[in-house]
Amino acid sequence: MAGMNATQRRMCLLTDGFLDVFTAKTAVGLLRYCPTEIVAVLDKPNAGKKLEEIVATGAGVPIVDSIAAATRLHANQLVLGAAFPGGQVPAPWRQHIREALAAGMDIVNGLHQRLNEDAELAAAAKAAGKRIWDVRNPPALTKVGTCKARTTKGKRILTIGTDCNLGKRVMALELTREMKQRGLNAEFVPTGQTGVMTVGRGVALDAVVSDFVSGAIEEQVLAVGDADYILVEGQGALVHPGFSAVTLGLMHGSLPDEMILCHAPARKTMRSSSTPVISMGEMITLSEAILRPLHHSKVVGVALNCHGMNDDDAAKARDEAHAVTGLPVVDAFKTGVGPLVDVISRR
Amino acid sequence: MAGMNATQRRMCLLTDGFLDVFTAKTAVGLLRYCPTEIVAVLDKPNAGKKLEEIVATGAGVPIVDSIAAATRLHANQLVLGAAFPGGQVPAPWRQHIREALAAGMDIVNGLHQRLNEDAELAAAAKAAGKRIWDVRNPPALTKVGTCKARTTKGKRILTIGTDCNLGKRVMALELTREMKQRGLNAEFVPTGQTGVMTVGRGVALDAVVSDFVSGAIEEQVLAVGDADYILVEGQGALVHPGFSAVTLGLMHGSLPDEMILCHAPARKTMRSSSTPVISMGEMITLSEAILRPLHHSKVVGVALNCHGMNDDDAAKARDEAHAVTGLPVVDAFKTGVGPLVDVISRR
Repeated sequence: MAGMNATQRRMCLLTDGFLDVFTAKTAVGLLRYCPTEIVAVLDKPNAGKKLEEIVATGAGVPIVDSIAAATRLHANQLVLGAAFPGGQVPAPWRQHIREALAAGMDIVNGLHQRLNEDAELAAAAKAAGKRIWDVRNPPALTKVGTCKARTTKGKRILTIGTDCNLGKRVMALELTREMKQRGLNAEFVPTGQTGVMTVGRGVALDAVVSDFVSGAIEEQVLAVGDADYILVEGQGALVHPGFSAVTLGLMHGSLPDEMILCHAPARKTMRSSSTPVISMGEMITLSEAILRPLHHSKVVGVALNCHGMNDDDAAKARDEAHAVTGLPVVDAFKTGVGPLVDVISRR
Repeated sequence: MAGMNATQRRMCLLTDGFLDVFTAKTAVGLLRYCPTEIVAVLDKPNAGKKLEEIVATGAGVPIVDSIAAATRLHANQLVLGAAFPGGQVPAPWRQHIREALAAGMDIVNGLHQRLNEDAELAAAAKAAGKRIWDVRNPPALTKVGTCKARTTKGKRILTIGTDCNLGKRVMALELTREMKQRGLNAEFVPTGQTGVMTVGRGVALDAVVSDFVSGAIEEQVLAVGDADYILVEGQGALVHPGFSAVTLGLMHGSLPDEMILCHAPARKTMRSSSTPVISMGEMITLSEAILRPLHHSKVVGVALNCHGMNDDDAAKARDEAHAVTGLPVVDAFKTGVGPLVDVISRR
């Protein structure tokens, strides 16, 4: 699906007043995975400071205090880079958005709130001849899944997890990056708003009507079907009380040949839930079983998220995960993802 | 959800050109479960023929060839009674809809296509002072599932299937009817447009954004949580390439205590798919396994759909199903559902 042209993006990330690793998760994700396309971060309280000292990424990208300053750096997109409490765009941000439009920038919005339905901002965009892209507002998709993902030339790899919010997007992006560095022909398929904003195309599946989730991802996978390796961003968890519908539609629509299981050893209950996280072994068994009637798929590796654990405990967790699953185990931030790329790209 | 007043309905079911038990599933369902509220079926190719000889139900309801004829029978609602692949209203039907509005009928639409967003038809409704009810146009639901269905006073029973379109709604309705006839306190929870149209309330889950499917059904189940038996209409199939997202969201949102497995022995591949139907045993194992992390649930009975089979073959199929599963087996149209009610209501 058309987003905005990714090849010519010169993004200014708007985080004004919300620049930290949790609230500005979108900005941090973009800084990490498309740094060369970002010309500035707009955050008045931190203007002039070093980005990497605040969010541990983004070295070299200046923090500016105004749209005027971003314009001098030739920004052509203003990307809303934080999710604030309440979900409504704060008043100072509305001013930045109006100024950005007037200065000739397009707006990229990953919030639930649709800026195209905001009469004032929509009018400002129209007057400026600029576009607002509401990333979470997918077009009316009406394609039903039909197992056509099986026809891709390349191998399909999906990241799955024992819970939501534990690194499935990051892992798919890290695998893609490592494969490209090895000269392999790999493509990332985003399925959530941050992933979509990272590559400038795709569909946020959680906003798609349930009948068409598998059809929507099938279409996205086929669009990059000629790549040798197709890395699909996972969503939710197969037994999450709230989000399992998205997860299964994604699994049956993308029909992965291989899966990477993401797991956070320190997490006891699933997010937004008092339900215990199931074991890696159970999740592997269930995931392979629910795919088997449509496609033979194997979990071939494990990625741990050891956030908050010390190095010793994290190393111990990796050893345990390997002992339990018999699979190669990585930690994106401590070991790199090389061992998983070895497995995925073996002949 | 508010629908239209069911007590004064005089429905004309529009099936024109699509009158068979599969495509006109909505019409057939209404003929079976609210026959006294239907005054005509509009189907030109079959006008004047006997309805029961074509779809095995609806004896006494005339098949007419025009809105004019339906008007003479005092129809006050035109109900779109067939579901086409893709969900777009065929051109000849638009003419019927315009004539019905002009003749003073409301329109009831269970297709994905929203007639209220069709400029021409919306204008025609406005001009006539009549209403279009887009049954599949749910309010903006934003509730995420949280396993609260577990708190109902009564037992939750869900119909599941080895495929879509093989009798899950019918079975839930038949069980509800039989229970009520036995004086039991049972409530039916519709989850599809036909079920919603049948009882005049509820949510068509396949039209709900995927993040909120389990939350939507959780709310519907809790709304009848005081009934002793809560019979939830199943949707899709857990391994259907197109519809599994709806199925799993429904399972995790309703958290059934017991499930009834619906199966069509003569069907080799799943609907709209070349994928083989899996065995009853596999589906029972998968369904119980995918629920287990959230709720202990058992398949307690089997309902066969022996459409197109002769009585001997159907009896043989029942014997085989019992031998394979060890569960009571019924056929709604050949044996009645008594044995399943016995199992569900045992103390």
